Amino acid sequence: MAETKKPLESHLGASTADRVWVRGLDLCRDLMGQVNLGDMAFLELRGRLPTPAESRVTNAILVALVEHGITPSALATRLTYLGAPEAVQAAVAAGLLGLGTVFVGSIEGAARLLSETLAGARPDADLKALAAAQVAEMRARKANIPGLGHRMHVKGDPRTARLFAIAAEASLRGRFVGLMEAIGEAASQAYGRTLPVNATGAIGALLCELGFDPRVARGFGVMSRAIGLVGHIFEELQHPMAREICDRVEHEANRPLAGAGS
Amino acid sequence: MAETKKPLESHLGASTADRVWVRGLDLCRDLMGQVNLGDMAFLELRGRLPTPAESRVTNAILVALVEHGITPSALATRLTYLGAPEAVQAAVAAGLLGLGTVFVGSIEGAARLLSETLAGARPDADLKALAAAQVAEMRARKANIPGLGHRMHVKGDPRTARLFAIAAEASLRGRFVGLMEAIGEAASQAYGRTLPVNATGAIGALLCELGFDPRVARGFGVMSRAIGLVGHIFEELQHPMAREICDRVEHEANRPLAGAGS
Amino acid sequence: MAETKKPLESHLGASTADRVWVRGLDLCRDLMGQVNLGDMAFLELRGRLPTPAESRVTNAILVALVEHGITPSALATRLTYLGAPEAVQAAVAAGLLGLGTVFVGSIEGAARLLSETLAGARPDADLKALAAAQVAEMRARKANIPGLGHRMHVKGDPRTARLFAIAAEASLRGRFVGLMEAIGEAASQAYGRTLPVNATGAIGALLCELGFDPRVARGFGVMSRAIGLVGHIFEELQHPMAREICDRVEHEANRPLAGAGS
Amino acid sequence: MAETKKPLESHLGASTADRVWVRGLDLCRDLMGQVNLGDMAFLELRGRLPTPAESRVTNAILVALVEHGITPSALATRLTYLGAPEAVQAAVAAGLLGLGTVFVGSIEGAARLLSETLAGARPDADLKALAAAQVAEMRARKANIPGLGHRMHVKGDPRTARLFAIAAEASLRGRFVGLMEAIGEAASQAYGRTLPVNATGAIGALLCELGFDPRVARGFGVMSRAIGLVGHIFEELQHPMAREICDRVEHEANRPLAGAGS
Repeated sequence: MAETKKPLESHLGASTADRVWVRGLDLCRDLMGQVNLGDMAFLELRGRLPTPAESRVTNAILVALVEHGITPSALATRLTYLGAPEAVQAAVAAGLLGLGTVFVGSIEGAARLLSETLAGARPDADLKALAAAQVAEMRARKANIPGLGHRMHVKGDPRTARLFAIAAEASLRGRFVGLMEAIGEAASQAYGRTLPVNATGAIGALLCELGFDPRVARGFGVMSRAIGLVGHIFEELQHPMAREICDRVEHEANRPLAGAGS
Repeated sequence: MAETKKPLESHLGASTADRVWVRGLDLCRDLMGQVNLGDMAFLELRGRLPTPAESRVTNAILVALVEHGITPSALATRLTYLGAPEAVQAAVAAGLLGLGTVFVGSIEGAARLLSETLAGARPDADLKALAAAQVAEMRARKANIPGLGHRMHVKGDPRTARLFAIAAEASLRGRFVGLMEAIGEAASQAYGRTLPVNATGAIGALLCELGFDPRVARGFGVMSRAIGLVGHIFEELQHPMAREICDRVEHEANRPLAGAGS
Repeated sequence: MAETKKPLESHLGASTADRVWVRGLDLCRDLMGQVNLGDMAFLELRGRLPTPAESRVTNAILVALVEHGITPSALATRLTYLGAPEAVQAAVAAGLLGLGTVFVGSIEGAARLLSETLAGARPDADLKALAAAQVAEMRARKANIPGLGHRMHVKGDPRTARLFAIAAEASLRGRFVGLMEAIGEAASQAYGRTLPVNATGAIGALLCELGFDPRVARGFGVMSRAIGLVGHIFEELQHPMAREICDRVEHEANRPLAGAGS
Repeated sequence: MAETKKPLESHLGASTADRVWVRGLDLCRDLMGQVNLGDMAFLELRGRLPTPAESRVTNAILVALVEHGITPSALATRLTYLGAPEAVQAAVAAGLLGLGTVFVGSIEGAARLLSETLAGARPDADLKALAAAQVAEMRARKANIPGLGHRMHVKGDPRTARLFAIAAEASLRGRFVGLMEAIGEAASQAYGRTLPVNATGAIGALLCELGFDPRVARGFGVMSRAIGLVGHIFEELQHPMAREICDRVEHEANRPLAGAGS
C-alpha cells in the first residue's frame, strides 16, 4: 500500500477509551436515551438530528415499511433459518436480498423520478403540466411509472392518505408530494383507470421532502424490513412453517422424467 | 400439496382492501404517526406495544448498536456496493453477514447464559454465588464468557454505564442485570484482570429484562446495523474508499509465485 | 494506513499486461482447455493440480452435491429471484445462506471428527476400537454424530457406495474412510438401529483422504450448490413456482387477530 | 393453500429410497465418476449432457472465471469470514453479492446484446454491417457497450484469444463470436481507440454459441467465483489479511468531527 493515491476518510463513527462518537455527537450523552431509532436513521443519512416534525414523518415512513405479512422475503428468511438456525444474521440477509426492482425498488424509482423532474424545472413550474408531460413521455417509451397502483388496495392505498396527512400536520407536504399526486392523476387519465399513489410512491415523495438522497431511498425499505424479518424468525420459532412448505412443494413438484434413466 | 399435514399460520401482518394490520393493530390508525421505529421492533418481537419505560430502554439499546465506524461489516458493504451499485439491499446484506459469533453474537451468548442460569435457579438465589459457580464452571472447560471486556474501552464500556442508568430510571434493572454484573466481577477476580461488562453483555441482560427471546437477541444487532450500513453506503457516495482500498491491497498483496509457470 | 504492522500477501492470482496467473500457473496456457472445473477447485484448495485419480474423486464429490431437487435453499433462491430478477448473484447467495449446520454442515462435522480422531491416534491404531470409543463418548454427552443416517435412504445412501467404489478404484480409500465406516457400524450397534454412512459422511471422509482442510469442507457443498441454484433460476424462468407458493401460503396462513384493533 | 391455481412442477432432481435422479439421469450410475463438474453445470442449464466439444468449451469458460486475485468480492468474503468463521456459506455469499452490473454483469450484457441483435437479423445478414449499426445506435444514446476493453490488458485480453481458439478447435466458433469481434472492431473505429473484446465479451458470445439462455449468463460468473471465494477463505486461514486491512483503514479514516460534541 505504498502508493497511496487518495486519502481514506469517514465521519460516521469513532471511539476513544471512554467515549463513542457518531456523526460528531457523543453516543452515550446525546443519543442513547434521548432519541429513538428512526431519529438515528435520520442522523446517519442527513448528518444531523431531525426536528420533531421531521422525526415524526421519518418514523411514520419507517413504521409503515416494517411488516407486510407473508411476503417472498419473509419466506426466504424462514427457509434459510431452517437450514442455518445458528445464523440469524444470514436468515435476515436472505430475506433482504429479494428487495429488488419488483417490490421495494419502486421507492427509489419514485424518488428519482420526482427529484429529476423538479431538478430540471423552474421553481414556479406548474406541477400538473410537469406531470402530464412526464406521464406522456414515459407512456410513449412504455416505461413503468413507479409508485402507482396496488394489487389489493385498488381504490387507494390507506398508507398514502395517512402519510400525506402526517406530512401536512408537520408542514412537510411540499412540491414533491404535489408532483407525485399530479402524476397519479395524469396517469389515471392517460391509462383510463384509477392509478392511485401507493405507499412506495408516497414514501418516495416524502423522502425527497425530507432531503434524503434518492440513491439511498431503497435503503428505507431495507432498514425497516430488517426489523420485520427478525419478527418472522421469532414467529417461525413459535409457529414453524418452513419445513411444512418445503415438504408440500417437494411432494407436489418433483417429477423424475418418465422413463428417463431406466 | 395434497397431503397437508400441518396448517400454516401467521399473525404478523395482513391486508384487506382498505386496511393493513400488524400484530392485530391497524397500521395507519394505531402505529403510523403514533409510535417510533424502536417501538415497532418491540411490537414485532413481543406481540404488544411497549410501555413508555420499555420504549425508552428498547430504543436506547437499538440506538447504541447502529454505528461503530469502519468495521469489517461496513467495509464488506462498501466493497459490495462498488460492484453492484444497483442493489443497495445486497450491499447491506453483505455487511450483515459478518455479524456472527465474533462480533455481535456475544449479545446472544450473554442473553442465553443469563437466561439459562436464572431458569435453573430459585427466585431468591444469591446472584454472586450463581455468578461464581458459573464462571468457575466455564473457566474449567475453557469456555469464553460472553459480554465481558473490550479492546478499546479497557477501563469500562461507557455504553454499559449509560444503558444500566437508563434501565434504572425505567425501573427495568432487575436480576438479569444483577447477574451480568456479578459475572463480570467474578470473572475479574478469577482471571486476575479487569473484565468489565461490555455493551453486548449489557444489552444481552437488558433484552432478558424486557422479555425478549434469547434466540432472537442477535437480531437486535442485525436490525440496528442495517441502518448503520445504509449510512455507510451514503457516505461511500460522498467519500468513496472501496476502490482505493482494493487498489492498495492488490498492489501490496498480489504475488505471482517466483519462477512459476515460466 | 501509516502504521503498517503486518504485510499483506496473496498467492492465488495476479495479472500482467499479457498474462493471468492462478496459483503460479499460466491461466491461458496451463489451465483453460487443459483442466476441468473440479480440477480448478482442487487447485484453489490444495495449491497444485490433482492427479487423474484425485481429479476423478474430487469431481465425483462435487457432482454428487450439485442438485437435490426442491430444497429450502432452492426455494429461497426462487423467491429472491421473484423480487430481484436483475440480480442473479443475489438469488444464488440467498440460497447458499441456508447451507448451515442443519443440511450441508455435516460434511464439515464429519471431516472434523475424523481428522481430530486420527490426529490423536497412533498410525496403527485399531479403527474399530477408535470408532467405538468415539461413539460411546459422543453418546454419553448426547452429541449428534455427523454423517450418519438419511430420512429417505433408510437402508443406505446410494451415493455413499458409489463414492467409496470410485475412491477404491482410485486407490484413495484409506483410514479416514475406514474410520467413517467403523463409526457407522459402532453407532448402529450402540443405538440399536441401522445408521448407515450418508453422502455427507462419505464426502467428509474423502475430503480428508484428499488432504483438504476440514475448515473448508463445507465449501464443497457451497461450490456445488451454487451451480445447482443457477439451475433452479433457469427452471424458474421456464416453470415458475415462487409466486404461486407465496400466494398459497399467504392465503392459508395470514390471520388478522380476531377482534383486534377493531 | 386450498385454492390451487397453478400446479407446481420441477424436473431438476428427485430421490427414491435407493436412487437419486438429476434431470432424468441416475446420479450414481450416469454422472458420478463419469462426468466432471463443468458438465454438471451444462446439464443443469441445458437439460442434457454436453458433447466432448461442448464440455471442453464450457469447462474452459468456467475455469477462466474462477480466480482473479484480490478483488472487491474476495475482500468482502474475507472480511465477512473474520466476523463469522462458523459460516463459510455466508462468507462466500457476501463475496458473490458484488458480482453486479459493474464487474461480472457484462457477461450478461454481452450475451443479451448478441442474442437480441441476431434474433432480429436475417440468417445471412452481414455481421460487420450489423455491428456498425449497433455501435452507432448505442453510441448515439451514450450506452455502454458490454464486453469491450480492459483496464490492464490494454492491447488485448489473453483469455479472449485462448477462448476463441478453443472454440474453433471444437467447431463452436459461430456467428455470435463473429458478431462480438465485429462489434469490437466497429467500436474501436467509432471511438478512435483500441477496444478489444475482453473475457466477459468472449464468454458472453460463447455462451450464446452453446445455447445458454442470456438471462442466466451472469450465473457462469457466479458459479465459478463461488469456487474462487472458497479459495480465498482457505488462504485467509493461512495468510490472514482481513483484520490488518480493517485496522489500517480504521486508523487512517476515522475522524471524529473537530470540536463536535465536546
